[in-house]
Amino acid sequence: MRQKMVDMVHRIQDEICDALREIDDVDYRQDEWTREEGGGGRSRVFSGGRVFEKAGVNVSVVHGTLSPQAAASMGGGHELQGTDLDFFATGISLVLHPLNPMAPTVHANYRYFERGEGKKPGSWWFGGGADLTPSYLFEEDAVHFHTVHKNACDRHEVGDFSKFKKWCDDYFFIKHRNERRGLGGIFFDDINDASREDCFAFVTDCAESFLESYLPILERRKDMEFTPEHKEWQQIRRGRYVEFNLVYDRGTTFGLTTNGRIESILMSLPLTARWEYCHEVPVGSEENRLLEVLRQPKDWIND
Amino acid sequence: MRQKMVDMVHRIQDEICDALREIDDVDYRQDEWTREEGGGGRSRVFSGGRVFEKAGVNVSVVHGTLSPQAAASMGGGHELQGTDLDFFATGISLVLHPLNPMAPTVHANYRYFERGEGKKPGSWWFGGGADLTPSYLFEEDAVHFHTVHKNACDRHEVGDFSKFKKWCDDYFFIKHRNERRGLGGIFFDDINDASREDCFAFVTDCAESFLESYLPILERRKDMEFTPEHKEWQQIRRGRYVEFNLVYDRGTTFGLTTNGRIESILMSLPLTARWEYCHEVPVGSEENRLLEVLRQPKDWIND
Repeated sequence: MRQKMVDMVHRIQDEICDALREIDDVDYRQDEWTREEGGGGRSRVFSGGRVFEKAGVNVSVVHGTLSPQAAASMGGGHELQGTDLDFFATGISLVLHPLNPMAPTVHANYRYFERGEGKKPGSWWFGGGADLTPSYLFEEDAVHFHTVHKNACDRHEVGDFSKFKKWCDDYFFIKHRNERRGLGGIFFDDINDASREDCFAFVTDCAESFLESYLPILERRKDMEFTPEHKEWQQIRRGRYVEFNLVYDRGTTFGLTTNGRIESILMSLPLTARWEYCHEVPVGSEENRLLEVLRQPKDWIND
Repeated sequence: MRQKMVDMVHRIQDEICDALREIDDVDYRQDEWTREEGGGGRSRVFSGGRVFEKAGVNVSVVHGTLSPQAAASMGGGHELQGTDLDFFATGISLVLHPLNPMAPTVHANYRYFERGEGKKPGSWWFGGGADLTPSYLFEEDAVHFHTVHKNACDRHEVGDFSKFKKWCDDYFFIKHRNERRGLGGIFFDDINDASREDCFAFVTDCAESFLESYLPILERRKDMEFTPEHKEWQQIRRGRYVEFNLVYDRGTTFGLTTNGRIESILMSLPLTARWEYCHEVPVGSEENRLLEVLRQPKDWIND
């Protein structure tokens, strides 16, 4: 399974990056890096183009030994010892921040984790998801993004779309703002309640669905007209993105405290962001329409 | 003591804000707010002016009951109970982000805390400090800022300048970047190893020294010429400011998790910030001269 997952995330990285360089007029910068404690990764970042302000697509394949604290925080427990503390992890993680404020930011991540030799019950699992963060709300985009992910879920026994949509809304909650980072998507973790092959097939299907879920949205929005006011609102929303990632995101805070490659971890941050004191949006405005769905998540498919 | 400290922080807020509106061409916006659990504050924010991109000067006077967890995290302990868990806190906190990239950001905070009725040993303390965060290094500014604070320390038995300078360098450490937020200043906490009056006199002297420590620097830098490249580097440094405040700053993270007034807590964030993937500065550049002192703190007075 380790090699199958490693091959899959690299193949998906290639597919996505090939598609992105068709859309934008710049190529990515690639950095292959190694981690002192074991393993490494391949980071690809687009910047300076016409479509993306900043876009990164990373894969990593890392292994090593967990501290008992880290194992406990992952649901292991202090009784783990010896080779039980060995771990293997691989995944793909991407964040695309388009320039045009009408085009939403998107994030996706698919990952596989093994503890020890990955043979005991509960010693392996998959996680992942994809979520959409617009500055301006286009309901058809939200419906499309959720429909593609629902279809991927529905093709697999382990794919519980309703549960994963709710998990997404719960996970991307910026508590101090009482709003979510984005309008939804799917999020799941600790997936191992089927055979490893079935779980892998599900995660692969989700990852393969990414381009179908996002490219039509990007195509519709990337060349729309916008004003400096639209751009300023996008910058304020980018500030909220920074707040979520630095204060709450488990991947980011875990990476910052465990000697990860900083530039790959913080690649998720937007190129620019803005914080205005006591910024308010008019009732009835497009900006407020977005805030309403960030405060009260919607079921985009059934509502 | 409670009332003396409350009066002092309000008087200093008035003095500083009066001085700032002499320098900039806009007035502050004032918000008086109350806290459901007890107390409130007075926030004043300058924005849209010619000198400051964003500048806030807050005072707060709050009281309530600590959770046993909060008491323990402050060095109390779970044995505290009943009125021992009552607390009173007041302080002034300011962050000034000038527009001109040659003019440094400055932060200062002076505070008084009481637990229970503040009569038992160790049930009251003062804390505070002031620190300077330039984008471009002017050694004379660093020397001036530290000299004024050293002079304030030297006028008081409790004022241990060398210790407080080191504490500042240690506290404002951005671990994942292996650099400090700024080039120094003073930082102290849990000050109660003299009479309450003597501690109050020390903290008052520091707070009264703020304008003398910063205004001459601002006057020298606020109208200097600069290029778009200088401004971009300032924006990248502002990104680091955001990283420190959201990931490490105890006041910010405490406020975000304890139902503080969000706009007053996050007033410290700059108006705008920037994150470039793998940004590097040339050896021998002015940008690199700054990084060197952020990586290896300097004793500005004796070196």
